[in-house]
Amino acid sequence: MNKLKNDLFLRALKGENVKRPPVWVMRQAGRYLPDFMVLKNKYDFFTRCQTPELATKITMMPIDQIGFDAAIIFSDILVVPQAMGIKVEMKPNFGPFIESPIKNNSDIEKLDILNVEERTDYVFEAIKMTKQALNNSIPLIGFAGSPWTILCYIVQGSGSKNFNTVKNFCFKNPELAHLLLKKITKATISYLSKKIKSGVDVVQLFDSWGGVLSHSDYQIFSFPYIKEIIDALDQSIPKIIYAKGCWHSLTNYSKIGVSAIGIDWSCSARNARYLTGNRVSLQGNFDPSRLFSSKEEIKTLTIQMLNEFGKEKYIANLGHGILPETPVENVKTFVSTVKEFY
Amino acid sequence: MNKLKNDLFLRALKGENVKRPPVWVMRQAGRYLPDFMVLKNKYDFFTRCQTPELATKITMMPIDQIGFDAAIIFSDILVVPQAMGIKVEMKPNFGPFIESPIKNNSDIEKLDILNVEERTDYVFEAIKMTKQALNNSIPLIGFAGSPWTILCYIVQGSGSKNFNTVKNFCFKNPELAHLLLKKITKATISYLSKKIKSGVDVVQLFDSWGGVLSHSDYQIFSFPYIKEIIDALDQSIPKIIYAKGCWHSLTNYSKIGVSAIGIDWSCSARNARYLTGNRVSLQGNFDPSRLFSSKEEIKTLTIQMLNEFGKEKYIANLGHGILPETPVENVKTFVSTVKEFY
Repeated sequence: MNKLKNDLFLRALKGENVKRPPVWVMRQAGRYLPDFMVLKNKYDFFTRCQTPELATKITMMPIDQIGFDAAIIFSDILVVPQAMGIKVEMKPNFGPFIESPIKNNSDIEKLDILNVEERTDYVFEAIKMTKQALNNSIPLIGFAGSPWTILCYIVQGSGSKNFNTVKNFCFKNPELAHLLLKKITKATISYLSKKIKSGVDVVQLFDSWGGVLSHSDYQIFSFPYIKEIIDALDQSIPKIIYAKGCWHSLTNYSKIGVSAIGIDWSCSARNARYLTGNRVSLQGNFDPSRLFSSKEEIKTLTIQMLNEFGKEKYIANLGHGILPETPVENVKTFVSTVKEFY
Repeated sequence: MNKLKNDLFLRALKGENVKRPPVWVMRQAGRYLPDFMVLKNKYDFFTRCQTPELATKITMMPIDQIGFDAAIIFSDILVVPQAMGIKVEMKPNFGPFIESPIKNNSDIEKLDILNVEERTDYVFEAIKMTKQALNNSIPLIGFAGSPWTILCYIVQGSGSKNFNTVKNFCFKNPELAHLLLKKITKATISYLSKKIKSGVDVVQLFDSWGGVLSHSDYQIFSFPYIKEIIDALDQSIPKIIYAKGCWHSLTNYSKIGVSAIGIDWSCSARNARYLTGNRVSLQGNFDPSRLFSSKEEIKTLTIQMLNEFGKEKYIANLGHGILPETPVENVKTFVSTVKEFY
């Protein structure tokens, strides 16, 4: 790996000294950027994901226009179940939609996990193109959904407030749930391994729906599969876990060899440091809605967050994905406040 | 107050010795009971709330049919904004709907907080009728939404996954948000005071949407108003706070004079006891979805929960409201498992 011009993000992940914390935001190549909206209106969601030139262009937009310290490849967590043979649509003003969600054993048997790499080749192409475009300036993040979060979508068939359909399915048919989780885990391992081979510098796992499980069911249906993925991946690549609403598992996650844990906005820096025992770096946790505040307030709140997390072992980010219609100027205020923090 | 035949719930709230923990469940007079469904199909939502005979009948159903240790008056948190002059509808298969949500200062100025008691008179009638029907068998709980949760509904106009519209409103117009929260707080205090005068033995506040706020914004927009209500109410009546997703504030809530705190399913008994320092009783936290498991598993998980919380200073309940279509037999298994726990 060639030396990066800006290695702040990698240094923070390793817990090394940094002059200031690095900053990037989840969904940074997204619906708040006017240039992204132009492409969004021109090409449908999966065309954008599956055309390496478009994915590269979108990935680079926030780097060139806002100046983050890390890039994250433009893609979606649902490309993995799609590559397993599930028909996934992205409906405008609705979100993910799966016409035939997983219902029984035969649906699970049909899932193909042997050709996931081949079917997601466009992602690996996009990674190679993006690495060239980045030209060793900053690191590139690859990502995947957690097996539990992917299960949520493919059993529910769409997003949901509480995924009760999914939970009922799992609690009534635990053996089927585990069969499905095992398949998703295997597919995710081969997908992320190939992403690493293609050149990503860091991997992040998103357990967006971990919080719908109780603290005890989380240990049954989500945590073990995430640990399995972490264990299976190249040990030299830094890994980040973001599990929304799963403060109960911060301690567990700090002990499985990840470099950093994403913190949502429910958790103070003090609690996050206490629960993770300073074993890992922390990433977060500005409330995305707070980017709609005035610039002065954004600055004040960002400085407050920086003071609470401290300069070491810390990556400034949001507590969840950036929201559509966030004013670009406000994102710039957030980023410049971090960059001025010495 | 006449002595109750079964005062387990009141004793647990006071931290007194009990032979076993009391048990009730949130939304116990709800959509899982076949008899309730008959009335639901016959009368619309607010007719059921506003007809004291119906509200009493519905409140008594789970007491007679399941055998809980506490009754909770059948009503809705939205009767308060309704009494403040907001037109609230309950749309089938959709939930609460407000055609003209709060948008500006003039909408807030128009809200009438002087006639809330008069306009919710049907609730107080229902309380008196229910007290008679209960005939000193078990205590009766009265409830209200937290000011923040009520604000969420009346600014958003409906339920929402993340209430980002509401958060943007509050972060852009904090002075308006506080003006509105103050009005709701005043209305809620007069409403709950009248409930207490009408005979409820215990009061519970629901901050169902507290978790959409960050730990720091929660201290600005929700906690102080709940504290104001607690401070204003009759000191001799036990009070319970249930704030979903607000584990960050368990310690704060344990210090403001409430008798018990409702615990959601993200928090283990051990963490809940640690965070509340044994200053209050705890109520919770069985995952409502887990009532769809097999009877054997419900029994095992309930015993596990009971062992973790312990017999003292504890009220067995769910971590959130019971779900529609929950098998009645499974609720009975949950309740009998608690009743057999010595």
